[in-house]
Amino acid sequence: MDYQKPFEKAEFDRRVKDVKNRMSDAGIDLLICQDPANMNWLTGFDGWSFYVPQAVLVHADEVAPLWFGRPQDAKAARITTDLPEENIQTFSETRVHHLTEHPFDDLAAFILSRGWGSSRIAVELDAHYYTARAHAHMVKGLPNARFSDSQQLVNWARLIKSDAELVYMREAGQLMTEVMNRAVAKVAPGVREYEVIAEVYQSQVMGLEGKYGDYTSICPLIQVGEGTSTPHLTWSDKPLPDDTLISIELGAARRHYHAPLTRTLYLGSPPKDVLRLADAIVEGTAAALEVARPGATCEEVEAAWQKVLNRHGYKKESRSGYSIGVNYPPDWGERTASLRPGDETVLQAGMCFHFQSGVWLEQIGAAISEPFVVGEKGGEHLCDVRRELIVIH
Amino acid sequence: MDYQKPFEKAEFDRRVKDVKNRMSDAGIDLLICQDPANMNWLTGFDGWSFYVPQAVLVHADEVAPLWFGRPQDAKAARITTDLPEENIQTFSETRVHHLTEHPFDDLAAFILSRGWGSSRIAVELDAHYYTARAHAHMVKGLPNARFSDSQQLVNWARLIKSDAELVYMREAGQLMTEVMNRAVAKVAPGVREYEVIAEVYQSQVMGLEGKYGDYTSICPLIQVGEGTSTPHLTWSDKPLPDDTLISIELGAARRHYHAPLTRTLYLGSPPKDVLRLADAIVEGTAAALEVARPGATCEEVEAAWQKVLNRHGYKKESRSGYSIGVNYPPDWGERTASLRPGDETVLQAGMCFHFQSGVWLEQIGAAISEPFVVGEKGGEHLCDVRRELIVIH
Repeated sequence: MDYQKPFEKAEFDRRVKDVKNRMSDAGIDLLICQDPANMNWLTGFDGWSFYVPQAVLVHADEVAPLWFGRPQDAKAARITTDLPEENIQTFSETRVHHLTEHPFDDLAAFILSRGWGSSRIAVELDAHYYTARAHAHMVKGLPNARFSDSQQLVNWARLIKSDAELVYMREAGQLMTEVMNRAVAKVAPGVREYEVIAEVYQSQVMGLEGKYGDYTSICPLIQVGEGTSTPHLTWSDKPLPDDTLISIELGAARRHYHAPLTRTLYLGSPPKDVLRLADAIVEGTAAALEVARPGATCEEVEAAWQKVLNRHGYKKESRSGYSIGVNYPPDWGERTASLRPGDETVLQAGMCFHFQSGVWLEQIGAAISEPFVVGEKGGEHLCDVRRELIVIH
Repeated sequence: MDYQKPFEKAEFDRRVKDVKNRMSDAGIDLLICQDPANMNWLTGFDGWSFYVPQAVLVHADEVAPLWFGRPQDAKAARITTDLPEENIQTFSETRVHHLTEHPFDDLAAFILSRGWGSSRIAVELDAHYYTARAHAHMVKGLPNARFSDSQQLVNWARLIKSDAELVYMREAGQLMTEVMNRAVAKVAPGVREYEVIAEVYQSQVMGLEGKYGDYTSICPLIQVGEGTSTPHLTWSDKPLPDDTLISIELGAARRHYHAPLTRTLYLGSPPKDVLRLADAIVEGTAAALEVARPGATCEEVEAAWQKVLNRHGYKKESRSGYSIGVNYPPDWGERTASLRPGDETVLQAGMCFHFQSGVWLEQIGAAISEPFVVGEKGGEHLCDVRRELIVIH
């Protein structure tokens, strides 16, 4: 079938080689990845099938990874990856949502059949879809294996983006700029929350200059008034009031590479406490991105931001950012480096972060965030939406 | 804050009481639910925060459930639920995406502090976001607890919908009809796949007659040509060809209650093999829904369908349907009753299913599905989109 793969085969080969080197260093024979982003990054596999157990396996002695999943999704593996036919393996359909059987009974049997039953096997113990029950069935089915947690081995391998990946990240950033500008243009008193969100979805998918957008790992988020004091509420049918604070957090995705962005708006004349908070956030974000060069650590970036915040009389308890790249629901964060105290990860060119400068106080909150690429001149903005409290009169 | 809860408090009270009765029968003192749909169904809690560990706890001796989650999401619990303030508990922010610490270290500590450390604790071992690592931290933190798998206790309690829930299911069905009709109207040669999907998202959220739609648990799916032989591919920028088969699977959601629907379209003059397959599917679906009355079993519904299929020379290996209701990504199925051989669940009025009549052959596939409510006259259609291969010339 005529399917446009997001990358050349050489890019996937390079990734697999890198992962095998990391496996060797960590003493891992067989790596089992259930994180959909890791499955995609290693093979190109793409499809909304992650609600059933599935995995990509990397074995030290195998040239190519193996895909394991539901029979009806095997064709999607054939279409979206370059894997050889014999590397596409399926489980028995009857095991789906079954009280005693589990698809990974078949995965364990397959691993045994390949003579890997006594291997050192790393699983993604904290991947969203790798459930406690999935792991129990693996352990039971492979009594002689030595299991360990991969500790996000592939997620860490994804940290520095290749030039080919940065093309998608920048396209996602450009699309994100368009999406946010369209959302802002839609905001007015009396407009219902869902009308803003419908506009967002439409523009997320329509893309920019013929480059369409994928679904994003987090749905569009909008908070109004007191709702701005918590970040993850979704839309309702309430009309936007005359005089109110609004926070919007959105994403845009190109081939599943994400640029997220938040902006805070005021409908009417903003009170002083909101302006003060927004000013501190904008200044703090600029200070953080100035520091975000190769050689700096994640905690140093956070410290630069926190210092500005503190000077203005605020503080932020939660982390102020996280690594971003290719991802699938429910999260666009990579679950690796975080911009927070104690994270000594050293920045390198090509790493991408979402500087999430949200500050949520007791009654109000504001966020004016920036996704960026680490570069020699500091954090390179992926988006270009005005960096201020957006006031709409 | 002025937040419109989806149900009266009495509805939630009734649910909690039902769950406590089931816990008593199963010998469970404390039930820990991480499935976002279960958390919502028990308390009303709503927000896209399920990418971090969080849970709703039901204890046999407590009047109300407890919410446990991230500090910045506690306000969302205050806004969207009726839980008393002391029942909203948070973990330390530093534990998010941490290599050695885990939010459920704090959950275990909280359970110990309440004197529940030696309780019979049921967890949702196979809930999508209850990871193997989450469970390991629970077991380590509560060495004297007796853990068991809840075996979807709450999911099973959700099986029969209340009258109040059926209102949302029917609204979702009406919205789904509108969304599919708009998608179909958009399909034409030369139109790009993403243009159809942008229309879908827009109509999913805009809703019908002032009743907006929520995000759906599965993104809109579109397959073209040979892609119709696998069900979970997503859109691309390819223009729809002149003479081709297209499958579209969509959902619509009201307050997170889902009606999913699939339709198969042909652009041009459909070949005989496609018409034959579509006819068998339509006839088989009607036969199945005729059987779907209180007292029939899930496997009897499947058998009625399979019998028709077989007569036409087809068979379907995978299950032909599953229970639906309130849900969150990544799946709108309830992971309980399935329409398949061996499932002896007895149908009762108010159960809702998606009859997923997709048949995926080697080179083509077709699906003309129907969400329905079990009723005295058989399956009551939630949607009203023409039940046939939709031919577009």
